[in-house]
Amino acid sequence: MRTRQRHQALKTDLYELTMAAGYVQNHMSSQAVFELYWRVMPPNRSFLIACGLEQALSYISSLTFSNDDILFLKSLDVFKHTKEDFWDFLKNFSFGGDVYAMREGEVFFADEPILQVVAPIAEAQLLETYLLSVFNIECLVASKAARIVHAAREDGLGRSVVDFGSRRAHGPDAAVLAARAAYVAGCAGTSNVLAGQAFDIPLYGTIAHSWISAYDDEQEAFKRYHDCFPDHTILLVDTYDTLKAVKAMTGLDYRDQIKAIRLDSGDLFNLSSESRRILDAAGLSRVKIIASGGLNEYKIKELVQAGAPIDSFGVGTDMVTSSDYSAADLIYKLVQIETDGQVKYKAKRSPRKQTVPGHKQIYRGTGSDHRFSGDKVCLKKEEAPSRTRPLLMKVMENGKRLIPEKTTAEIRQYCVDAKKCLPDGAFDLKTPYPYPLEYSGHLQKLMI
Amino acid sequence: MRTRQRHQALKTDLYELTMAAGYVQNHMSSQAVFELYWRVMPPNRSFLIACGLEQALSYISSLTFSNDDILFLKSLDVFKHTKEDFWDFLKNFSFGGDVYAMREGEVFFADEPILQVVAPIAEAQLLETYLLSVFNIECLVASKAARIVHAAREDGLGRSVVDFGSRRAHGPDAAVLAARAAYVAGCAGTSNVLAGQAFDIPLYGTIAHSWISAYDDEQEAFKRYHDCFPDHTILLVDTYDTLKAVKAMTGLDYRDQIKAIRLDSGDLFNLSSESRRILDAAGLSRVKIIASGGLNEYKIKELVQAGAPIDSFGVGTDMVTSSDYSAADLIYKLVQIETDGQVKYKAKRSPRKQTVPGHKQIYRGTGSDHRFSGDKVCLKKEEAPSRTRPLLMKVMENGKRLIPEKTTAEIRQYCVDAKKCLPDGAFDLKTPYPYPLEYSGHLQKLMI
Repeated sequence: MRTRQRHQALKTDLYELTMAAGYVQNHMSSQAVFELYWRVMPPNRSFLIACGLEQALSYISSLTFSNDDILFLKSLDVFKHTKEDFWDFLKNFSFGGDVYAMREGEVFFADEPILQVVAPIAEAQLLETYLLSVFNIECLVASKAARIVHAAREDGLGRSVVDFGSRRAHGPDAAVLAARAAYVAGCAGTSNVLAGQAFDIPLYGTIAHSWISAYDDEQEAFKRYHDCFPDHTILLVDTYDTLKAVKAMTGLDYRDQIKAIRLDSGDLFNLSSESRRILDAAGLSRVKIIASGGLNEYKIKELVQAGAPIDSFGVGTDMVTSSDYSAADLIYKLVQIETDGQVKYKAKRSPRKQTVPGHKQIYRGTGSDHRFSGDKVCLKKEEAPSRTRPLLMKVMENGKRLIPEKTTAEIRQYCVDAKKCLPDGAFDLKTPYPYPLEYSGHLQKLMI
Repeated sequence: MRTRQRHQALKTDLYELTMAAGYVQNHMSSQAVFELYWRVMPPNRSFLIACGLEQALSYISSLTFSNDDILFLKSLDVFKHTKEDFWDFLKNFSFGGDVYAMREGEVFFADEPILQVVAPIAEAQLLETYLLSVFNIECLVASKAARIVHAAREDGLGRSVVDFGSRRAHGPDAAVLAARAAYVAGCAGTSNVLAGQAFDIPLYGTIAHSWISAYDDEQEAFKRYHDCFPDHTILLVDTYDTLKAVKAMTGLDYRDQIKAIRLDSGDLFNLSSESRRILDAAGLSRVKIIASGGLNEYKIKELVQAGAPIDSFGVGTDMVTSSDYSAADLIYKLVQIETDGQVKYKAKRSPRKQTVPGHKQIYRGTGSDHRFSGDKVCLKKEEAPSRTRPLLMKVMENGKRLIPEKTTAEIRQYCVDAKKCLPDGAFDLKTPYPYPLEYSGHLQKLMI
């Protein structure tokens, strides 16, 4: 890897920069409205979780172009006719527009903007790639994690889910964003240390099989670990013979200090049931059982429904890669442009890629059972339907942040509360729940 | 996002650090051999591409722990009994072991180590999470991209594939790694500017639908773009009516400077065929056709086989997320440990997670047709089978890099050459080719 310094500003598609250069050169200073929304719901999903706003706002408010960035861009043939205006624009760049967004942790559905950027078109265009990639990974993982966490808790016993996915995430940085998104969606914590540090997420860890096999026998490996971490002894019992290891454990002189055992392979229902029986018979009801190894919402639901005595699930691959639906479908579309006070609605009419024009607001209704009863998408300038609340609020004005930075725990709490307001059917893992979404008459007319 | 500075060192699982602390505290200085390999081939794949070595070596040789990192770790309850020895170990950390690896861009198969770390066990353990996550994303995307590039070239017409996936990658950093991996596997370039800068990858870009719809009509949008980028005019023609736009194009006064058109929706076979006819009839045979929009190896193969006159494919989502198999299956396992000159082979015997012990070498045979004829996995200390070459070489000794840094273009060339030596059957997109892989008699005995 070259040692040239990496800047956030160039983590973007080339065409964002060429288009921005074109707008600057053409003196196109119209105010654009771009909306970021999820196109089509994944086939087996009923809701999505908005996640990534803090990263997005941090990016927007800190985006600048260094001299090195500009020198590199100037070296590209495509910019050989680009005039100094654009290089000055980049040199002095500081986002000066407005941003509207849903609260982070909010429940949302396809076709609903979760973020809107209102700014001179060159500025708004430049944000596209980064915003999409950061919202795509975080919304994707949060939406998947919400299903997993729900499956684990369906019996009301408070079983927790911990993110163990860093090694399988799409690179070391995706691991950090995935850990954050999983926590926002209700996970109890993560194994990712940087995510723990950066976002104040509770950290969890056990031991790996390598620790067990590094020693001559399992008992020695257990003892050595306990010596170092007497209050945090979680024993991985499946390296050789799971139940033999659990039985042996009950005779250890430090047995009363063991916090939990971890099962990472085999038939988790049988092994957890047998382990529980052995532990309980030895008076070790206090020792928890953690299960891991290729878990997802389907396998967890099965285990929970069967009554497997598992206290906590460590979930990795399937959660952090959203393996059954691994690419989020968020897009960033120009919906409106205002030149000299004149508003023009904009839409793309490409086959199967039509878009809905206009700067929108979404109003969410709530039934007498406190559950969400349906959303109405309107133009921002329309009046609010009665007994609804608007989901999009102004979070940045003239480049200045209007809302205080939220802690990840606060965002998580908001998400937990929002999920409670979903209709029960939304948690069915296979049949999508048809959440009511309607467009205002005004918008319907614009769509014809 | 907190503004605390982020260090590479904490982009890891907590248990790597607790285990390292345990090893230090237990004075466990045995030399460990960890091997990083792919467990099971994806169901429809016949080969994999090794990618990520430069990032891995850069990480290994620069890994250090700052005072802030150490202070943060000390604040965790799990470390409350950890002695000063471990904090000194982290403070003075500098990897001092050996690393063996396949060449980057090499073709490999399940069960073949692509990287081996030989070091005191605490040092080797610490590298696990980062190495896995960086190899996982790069091997995953390179292996997928190799299929896509091959599908595009199957008719020998040299159609190129360009990475357009940044927005759908799993975050802004995954986008950069994915762009690199796609290029290594044979893509012609990427739209990701930072990847272009950091890895000297050719950069490509066109225009977005927002550019077209920002103007009052398509013709104005085209003209405005051409004015700014006269030598790089690629017109996106599908915003309203594709063929109408192409026809209109043939009458433009700058028609002879148009490089290409891009089709991003609709029936790409029909639209490209019709567009080609219109362009050719107008004497614009020189204008290339670029297609994009939800492409993958299957759709490209279909277009190529049907003879669609497409010169270049822009591929995004399915490539950078490896959508049909979105989580790589690389693991990092302890296979051998040496204490006071005594070597012990190590394996995990968990059900369906058994591992093969011993520090290995892989020997690759080549047939008279210059194609790879099969691999043999041996213990490193065994003699090489005749007429084979070893795939693993020592790339780092006592923490010092032994091989010169390769340019990404060199790595790509190596990969292009390696792919040419694959049996034809390996490129079948649906039926996996059973590439011969055998274990030496010695290893077979160890596996019993």
